[in-house]
Amino acid sequence: MSESIEYPALYLKRGEDARLRAGHLWVFSNEIDVARSPLGAFAPGDVAAIVDHRGKPIGIGYVNPKSLIAARLVVRGLAHPFDRSLIVHRLNIALALREQLYAEPYYRLAYGESDGLPGLVLDRFGDVVVGQITTAGMERQKEAITDAIVKVLSPRQLWWKNDAGIRAMEQLPEYADLGYGEYGGEVVAKEGGLEFGVDPVGGQKTGWFYDQRENRDELARFVTGKRVLDMFSYLGGWGIRAAAYGAREVDCVDASAGAVEATLRNIERNGLANRVNALRADAFDHLKALREARERYDVVILDPPAFIKRRKDFKEGSLAYRRLNELGMQVLARDGILVTCSCSHHMPRQALLDGVQQGARHLDRQVQMLVSLQQGPDHPVHPAIPETDYLKGYILRVLPA
Amino acid sequence: MSESIEYPALYLKRGEDARLRAGHLWVFSNEIDVARSPLGAFAPGDVAAIVDHRGKPIGIGYVNPKSLIAARLVVRGLAHPFDRSLIVHRLNIALALREQLYAEPYYRLAYGESDGLPGLVLDRFGDVVVGQITTAGMERQKEAITDAIVKVLSPRQLWWKNDAGIRAMEQLPEYADLGYGEYGGEVVAKEGGLEFGVDPVGGQKTGWFYDQRENRDELARFVTGKRVLDMFSYLGGWGIRAAAYGAREVDCVDASAGAVEATLRNIERNGLANRVNALRADAFDHLKALREARERYDVVILDPPAFIKRRKDFKEGSLAYRRLNELGMQVLARDGILVTCSCSHHMPRQALLDGVQQGARHLDRQVQMLVSLQQGPDHPVHPAIPETDYLKGYILRVLPA
Repeated sequence: MSESIEYPALYLKRGEDARLRAGHLWVFSNEIDVARSPLGAFAPGDVAAIVDHRGKPIGIGYVNPKSLIAARLVVRGLAHPFDRSLIVHRLNIALALREQLYAEPYYRLAYGESDGLPGLVLDRFGDVVVGQITTAGMERQKEAITDAIVKVLSPRQLWWKNDAGIRAMEQLPEYADLGYGEYGGEVVAKEGGLEFGVDPVGGQKTGWFYDQRENRDELARFVTGKRVLDMFSYLGGWGIRAAAYGAREVDCVDASAGAVEATLRNIERNGLANRVNALRADAFDHLKALREARERYDVVILDPPAFIKRRKDFKEGSLAYRRLNELGMQVLARDGILVTCSCSHHMPRQALLDGVQQGARHLDRQVQMLVSLQQGPDHPVHPAIPETDYLKGYILRVLPA
Repeated sequence: MSESIEYPALYLKRGEDARLRAGHLWVFSNEIDVARSPLGAFAPGDVAAIVDHRGKPIGIGYVNPKSLIAARLVVRGLAHPFDRSLIVHRLNIALALREQLYAEPYYRLAYGESDGLPGLVLDRFGDVVVGQITTAGMERQKEAITDAIVKVLSPRQLWWKNDAGIRAMEQLPEYADLGYGEYGGEVVAKEGGLEFGVDPVGGQKTGWFYDQRENRDELARFVTGKRVLDMFSYLGGWGIRAAAYGAREVDCVDASAGAVEATLRNIERNGLANRVNALRADAFDHLKALREARERYDVVILDPPAFIKRRKDFKEGSLAYRRLNELGMQVLARDGILVTCSCSHHMPRQALLDGVQQGARHLDRQVQMLVSLQQGPDHPVHPAIPETDYLKGYILRVLPA
């Protein structure tokens, strides 16, 4: 073994290095040679050198003996320690991409494994950063991460939105609070020339879904002069952007009173109150009521929360997607546009389309798939880590059969 | 059986109606009950009522007893005959979508099965239409199609580019000639504010690849001030558009002398001769020579012809994609953008990405998948007909490992 290893070694069993060498970053607990490197010797978040069964180092990562994903590789080779300087370097590489992609500093700055920062997500709202840590290894580095963010971006505020349920799998507590800077001032997302007020503590995830930005850009071609229904509208991202692209009338529908209130503020803020409404309702109930009332929209947008959180929920969840899409098609005009999405990693892209097609046949309608939607390029997919690819959707034309 | 059937019946075996009822349009020869409806009774291109084993009609289609795909469904139910008026109706539905999508009349107007016109493709270049017929059933309707196109579009010219190799499977002759209008004048494709001269007789396919237009639009974010290599450049679509988006220097490379000459004319035509070059070379040889010379590009575009024409060529073809992408990455800058495509239906989207990832690991580089590319919305995918989904690609960022 190289002498430059300064970290305790985590030995893999024979052959268990293959996935890492192919590019993945995760080590599962059953892949570790616990005779040579007992997991009990590591505390959650300890840094280790990950080595193959011959003792040849693969790189440096962090360990959580209490998680099914027992370790994540952060650096290949042993040349660079996992420290503040490495995080600064990774942030600069991530920043270079976003600065090429976007004219203004509103984007996902770091997307976990895909940006070489497993367990860390950072969204940027101008001079405010909202971060989300999902692993003990990154939680341990919180101070280094904060320092690195301050060094690279000099933000006014850094919020930690560390309340994702997934943290329980790492036995981490859930909390949301200011991590750097002073309380006060508002947080705003800018997208498509519009502004949306964001709540970095009470909102969903990090407060705003930048992952759908480029998909919302696609509305430009489909909504001018149209009547649009935006289901699961959250802060009104889809609906308000549709109105800005010239939609005649937009209804935003969300089950959360807080989301509807925030949407109404965003509608006002962007001067679109004459063409956008927001109302509180359960999506399935509301679509059924619209169907009964024979209401018709030219464009129906379905961007629900993940119906499939765990693989075992696939059957039930995919039926829910199919039911939802069928309801959506039932309130569509004769020649209408359906925008349908799933953010469930466990919902395959093709299964979403198959469900729409089955629904369409059931309703004696036919479908043309025009545009396949995906998470934006500030959420890059790591080709060796399918788990980084979660958002899928379609823009479909729905015609009589 | 309904009395309104005016066409001879083509009986399916028990259960063989399921795929059609799910939305597909093809009937394979082994699915036909030849005892009740001998295929020999049909001439290539005959119209028939397609009926299930109980005699219940599914709809109207056309038959080719000499093809593996023995029949294609054109109309569901028996209410509308397959005639000029139906073709006019289908063209109008297709046209409505394109007129919504594009400000100018340059697009694929009809994309076969996806537009309810199996075996017919029409590309529109302003007042010129280039059509491609690939089945005996559509060849039989050529006069009705011509009449319908004239009625809907009043074009100056209609060219038939009926020289696709696939016609042999329908025992159709190959030819390319003017089908309507008078010889003379030029054919121009407009895309991204640029003009490209097109040869409707001597060019590839229908002369221009509209399917990549929206993918070429994506270059806007990645090429400004960059050095760009456009491999398999054909008429210079990618490279010239890159220059128009501000690329500093673009090299277009194609193996065909005619394509290179046409590219040089297109470069001149768009006033970009100071920043775009075109040269003739074999792609693999040229990439190797560039590698030897340690040339580096910021953006490398690989848009090759289909390496996998038949399913049995998958292994060899997918290796060719992997080799090509590895060569492409070897002439990429340290932080470079790879645009890679495959128009092989038999190359799965994921396999293309897997090959890039394997190549990247082999070269000790890492990849971020930023944008997933697909055929444009004027080439809609029929969700029940996977064969209509053929174009896939990625925009990838390639970094040091």
